[in-house]
Amino acid sequence: MQNAFCKKPLWEASIALADVAMGRAPAELVIRDARLVNVCTREIVEHTDVAVAEGRVALVGDAAHCVGESTTVIEANGAYIAPGFLDGHMHIESSMMTVGNYARAVVPHGTVGVYADPHEICNVFGKKGVELLIEDSLRAPLKAMVTVPSCVPAVPGFEDAGAEITSADVREMMAWERVVGLGEMMNFPGVFMGDAEVHAKIAETLQAGKCPTGHFSMPDGGNMLQAYIASGVRCCHESTTARDALAKMRMGMYAMLREGSAWHDLHEASGALKEINDSRYCVLISDDTHPDTLLELGHMDHILRRAVAEGIDPISALQMVTVNCAQCFGMDGELGSIAPGKCADIVFFEGELSDFRVAKVLIDGELVAENGCLINLIEDFNYPDWARESMKLSPVTARSFGVAAPAGQSGSVKARVIEVIPNRVANIERFFELAVQDGQVQADAARDVQKAFVFERHNQTGTVGFGFIAGFGIRRGAVAQTVAHDAHNLLVAGVSDGDMALAANTLIACGGGLCVALDGQVLALVPLPVAGLISACGAQELSGQVKALDAAWKALGCGINSPYMTFALTSLACLPALRITNRGLVDCRTFEMVGLFLAD
Amino acid sequence: MQNAFCKKPLWEASIALADVAMGRAPAELVIRDARLVNVCTREIVEHTDVAVAEGRVALVGDAAHCVGESTTVIEANGAYIAPGFLDGHMHIESSMMTVGNYARAVVPHGTVGVYADPHEICNVFGKKGVELLIEDSLRAPLKAMVTVPSCVPAVPGFEDAGAEITSADVREMMAWERVVGLGEMMNFPGVFMGDAEVHAKIAETLQAGKCPTGHFSMPDGGNMLQAYIASGVRCCHESTTARDALAKMRMGMYAMLREGSAWHDLHEASGALKEINDSRYCVLISDDTHPDTLLELGHMDHILRRAVAEGIDPISALQMVTVNCAQCFGMDGELGSIAPGKCADIVFFEGELSDFRVAKVLIDGELVAENGCLINLIEDFNYPDWARESMKLSPVTARSFGVAAPAGQSGSVKARVIEVIPNRVANIERFFELAVQDGQVQADAARDVQKAFVFERHNQTGTVGFGFIAGFGIRRGAVAQTVAHDAHNLLVAGVSDGDMALAANTLIACGGGLCVALDGQVLALVPLPVAGLISACGAQELSGQVKALDAAWKALGCGINSPYMTFALTSLACLPALRITNRGLVDCRTFEMVGLFLAD
Repeated sequence: MQNAFCKKPLWEASIALADVAMGRAPAELVIRDARLVNVCTREIVEHTDVAVAEGRVALVGDAAHCVGESTTVIEANGAYIAPGFLDGHMHIESSMMTVGNYARAVVPHGTVGVYADPHEICNVFGKKGVELLIEDSLRAPLKAMVTVPSCVPAVPGFEDAGAEITSADVREMMAWERVVGLGEMMNFPGVFMGDAEVHAKIAETLQAGKCPTGHFSMPDGGNMLQAYIASGVRCCHESTTARDALAKMRMGMYAMLREGSAWHDLHEASGALKEINDSRYCVLISDDTHPDTLLELGHMDHILRRAVAEGIDPISALQMVTVNCAQCFGMDGELGSIAPGKCADIVFFEGELSDFRVAKVLIDGELVAENGCLINLIEDFNYPDWARESMKLSPVTARSFGVAAPAGQSGSVKARVIEVIPNRVANIERFFELAVQDGQVQADAARDVQKAFVFERHNQTGTVGFGFIAGFGIRRGAVAQTVAHDAHNLLVAGVSDGDMALAANTLIACGGGLCVALDGQVLALVPLPVAGLISACGAQELSGQVKALDAAWKALGCGINSPYMTFALTSLACLPALRITNRGLVDCRTFEMVGLFLAD
Repeated sequence: MQNAFCKKPLWEASIALADVAMGRAPAELVIRDARLVNVCTREIVEHTDVAVAEGRVALVGDAAHCVGESTTVIEANGAYIAPGFLDGHMHIESSMMTVGNYARAVVPHGTVGVYADPHEICNVFGKKGVELLIEDSLRAPLKAMVTVPSCVPAVPGFEDAGAEITSADVREMMAWERVVGLGEMMNFPGVFMGDAEVHAKIAETLQAGKCPTGHFSMPDGGNMLQAYIASGVRCCHESTTARDALAKMRMGMYAMLREGSAWHDLHEASGALKEINDSRYCVLISDDTHPDTLLELGHMDHILRRAVAEGIDPISALQMVTVNCAQCFGMDGELGSIAPGKCADIVFFEGELSDFRVAKVLIDGELVAENGCLINLIEDFNYPDWARESMKLSPVTARSFGVAAPAGQSGSVKARVIEVIPNRVANIERFFELAVQDGQVQADAARDVQKAFVFERHNQTGTVGFGFIAGFGIRRGAVAQTVAHDAHNLLVAGVSDGDMALAANTLIACGGGLCVALDGQVLALVPLPVAGLISACGAQELSGQVKALDAAWKALGCGINSPYMTFALTSLACLPALRITNRGLVDCRTFEMVGLFLAD
C-alpha cells in the first residue's frame, strides 16, 4: 500500500540500490558533505553523503565510490539536511486550492507529504469527490496520502450533505491504493456510546491494516477518551491543553499538535512535552493552512519554528514532522528518515537549523524546489464539468429571505440567536427580542443581529434552514458562501434581503465561493467553482482575492479577523453550542433540533 | 494479521471495551493501584488502575466505575506493572523444548511473546516442520509469532538439509496467519551482491506487509551493510560492537542486542546507546536461551537486569523489550504497551523496578503465572509419529569411521584440521601431520585431534563428509549429536571408531539427540526425538540431562563450557573459517569445498 507514494516499490528497486551502495553502478544523485539531522537517533551527523537511485536512498555515509559520470552531485557544503516534512492531518480543500496549486505553495517550504482527509469535497460529491482529489494529486510531486472521510455527513439526521459514507463505502475505499487510513473520526460520541456503524468504520480500517485517525475534542475526555482510544483510533489533533495531549500520549495515542492558520494549539498543548521523557507519540500538524499563511509564514517550516519558540529542541521538532508521523501511519519503512531503502525525500536548510529556512527540496530523489520555487511545472488537472456544477439551486429573490413571525405574533418576538466568539470555534446561544413588521421578523443591525439562511444545494431537496446570528458586526449588506462546514450548503447572512439575494445568486451563477454584497453591488467575490470549495487560482492570486474579501467584510462593519472562517463554522452542527443547517437550528449540546422562536 | 495473537480482534472487542470504559458493563478484571511503567512516555505513573475485558485493556487510570460483581480485582498495592516482555529474535528449537515446555519455562519470567524463527525444524522437515511448531504453540499462552525461515539450507550447494525454502514458499507462508515476517536473512552476501532469489524472498515479505528480519554478522559492514539495509531488512541481532550497533540504528535499522545463553553481546554493543539521544531503534533479544540458563538466570528478566548493569535506565530497558520491539514488527497497535485497546499482556514486579523480579504475568487479561509458576496446565501437543522419525539412516559400524589415506601415501599425511576456539563462533584452519596405519589416517588424542563425520540423515542420500577437528580436548571415546547447525545432520567426533559408532547408533535408535560414549558404554544421552532437535522433557529434567552430558564430555577430557553448543557449530558453513558438512570440508571465507589432505 505504502508504495503507491514512491517512484518505485522497494522490492523493485532493492537490487539497483545494492549495486549503487556497493559501487557496482553509479548513483543517480549524490549529496556531498551534509550535516545530517538523524531523526532515528536524534543527533546531528557531520560530513555525511547520501547516494540516491530509483527515487530511494542507497547509502548514507561516504558516497565517493557511488559517483560516476552520470551522477548528479549536489554539494551541501556542510548545510543541514533532514527528511522532508510530513503534515499528519489536513484537508487540501481548506486551502481552497487544487492539489496542484497546493503543492506549488507547500513543497518549496519543505513539505513532501500530507495525510489528507478530503471530507470537504466528499460532503459535496461523495466517493467521486475523493477520486477527483486523488486524480489531481497524481500530477503533483507532493505525496497526498488519503484517509477515507469517516463522517459524511458530519452530523447525520441534522443536515443534508451531498453524499453519505457508510461502513460499506469505507470497506470499498480501503482497497484504493492511495488510501492509508480512516479520516478523522469526529463522531466520538458514537465511538464511546458503542454505535455499531461507527465502530464498523474503524473495524474496516483495522482489518485493512490501515490507520484510523481521530478527532476527540472534549478537553477532559476522561472515560470517554479511554473508550475512544480503545476502539483503535491511533491519533488525534484536537488537544488544546497540555493535560489533554499528555493523557493521549500516555495512552499510546499520537497527539497531533495543531498550529494552522485558524487554530493555534501549540502554545498550550506543547506543555505536555515537559512532563514526559519520550516524545515519539507527538506529531505536529497544520489542519489547516490558508493561502495567505502559506505566503506570509510558510507551512510545516513555520510550525517547526513555532515549536522551537515553544521550547522544543529543533531535532525533536523535526522528529515530530518526520519519523513520528510515519510511525503513526505504519509507513516508517518508506518515509520519515534519511536511511538506506527509504524514499529520498530530503530538505536542505540554509543557516541555522532552528531557523528551518528551506533552500532545496528533493522528492523521490528529484530536486523539485529551490529557493522557494518549484523547479518543474505541474500540469494542471482539468476538473470535469460536473465537478464545476455543484450549485444545484435556482436563483433566489429578496423574498426568499423573509422570516415569518409565528402566527398571531406582532410587535416583537423572542428569538434564539447564535452569537459567535471571534477566533473561537465554540459559540453561544442568546435570546433577542426582535421586531416584527408586516408579519416578518426583522434583523437588527443596531444590535448586531443578522439573518442567516442555509440552502441545501446538492440534491435539490429545496430545504432551507434559517435563523439569526450575532457578533459579526455586520451593519449593512450581506455575505454568502458555499464553504460552510461540513455539508457545504449555501450559507447566507446579512441585514439586507436584497443584498442577501444578490450574494446568493452571485454564487449560484459562478459555481460557488465566497461573496460580499452591499447596496446592490458585489463588493468582493472569491469564486470557488470546483465543488463550491476550490479555486482555479494559485496561492498568490487567491490570497489577493481573500484579502479583498476581508476588506469587504470590514466595509460591512465586521471587525473579526478572517471572518469567513468563523462564518463557515456557523453550520457545523458538531460544535457547541448552537448551529444552523439546512434543516434548521441545532442545539449541539443536546443534539436536538430547536425552534427559532420562544413563547414568552 | 496481528490479531492471530490476541484473544479477539480489536474490531470484535471495541464495543465491549467502550462499554467497560464508560461504566456501562463491568470489567472482567481490574488491577488496582499500580505503579505503571509507561513505555509510551518513558515515565512512571503512580496510582494507576487498569480495566480489562475481552483480553484487552479497556481503561488505564481510575477504574473504580468498571468494577462490578463479576469483576476480578487484583490489588497491586503500589507494585510496578509493565507490558509483558517480547523476545524479538529467537529459535524455540534451540531450547530443545516443545513450545509448551518452553512457554512453561519463560512465561513465569514475564515473557508474553516471542518472535520465533523456526529454521532449525525447517531444515529438518521444511514447511511441515514450521506448521508443527505453530500447532504446538496454539496450546500455550505464550504468543509465538513466527517468521518464515529465509535460509534453508543455510549454505545452498555446500550441504544437504532436509528441505529447501524458496521464494515461492516464502510467498505461500506469508499468507499464514501466525507469520509476521521473514526469518533472519543470513545470506547477507546474497543481499549485497544482488542475488535475485534472495531479494525475491525479501520482496515477498514486503509485499505481504510483513517484517523482513536480518542477520548481518560482519562487524564493520560498511557499504555491504548499507546495501543490506537498503533491501528493506528491518532489524539485525548480530551487532557485537558498539560501533556496529550505532551504525545500524543511525540507518533506521532496529539493533537487536543479544544476551543469550551462548552469546553475550550486551556489554560491548550497548555502548552505542551512549552516543545517541533516542533509543527507539534498540531492542533486547535472547537468540537463544537454554534450559539451564532459564532455570538459573531467567529469560528477558535476566536480560533486563543485564541491561541495567550496563548502565541503561530501567524504563528505557523495558521499552527495548516492549514498545520498541512491537514497533519493529509493526504490531504496536496490539502489543507492547499498557493502553486502551491493546492486549492485556501485563507483568507485575515485586520490589524495586530495576530488579525486574516478576511476581505475576497476565496474557490476554488472564493471570497465567504467579510466583514463578504457570497457573494452568498446558495441554501437551502430541507430535505425530513422522516427526519422531527423522533419523533416516541405517546403523553404522566402526568401519564406517575409517579415513582412507590418499593412494600411495603411508607413514603420515598432512591434513586440514578445524580448530575450535572455546566460546567463540569463529574457528581456525590448521594443518596437522597425522599418522597413517594400514592405509587409514588416525586421530591423534595426544595432540587433541579427533575425527569428525557428518552423515546426511534426511533424504537417504548416503552422503558422508569427514575430516578432523581439534581444540575440544577429547582424549578418548566419542560424541555424537543431531543438533548440528543448520542442516542438523548426524555429527560424530571422537578418537575411538567403536565409540563413534556406538554414539551414532544410539542416536539413530532413539530418534536423535546428544550422546557421549566411552569404552563401549553410553556415558550420557539427551534424547531429542522430535526432528532430532526437541526433547519431550521440561526445562528441569532437560537441564539435568544436559548437565550429565557436560559431565560426560568432561570425562572424555573436554574442558570447554557447554561444549555441545560449540560442537553444533562445526557444521555451520556460513561461519569462518573452516566447517564440515555432509559434503565435506568447506572454506567459509572463500565458499569453496576444499580437500582434506594437502600434497607436500
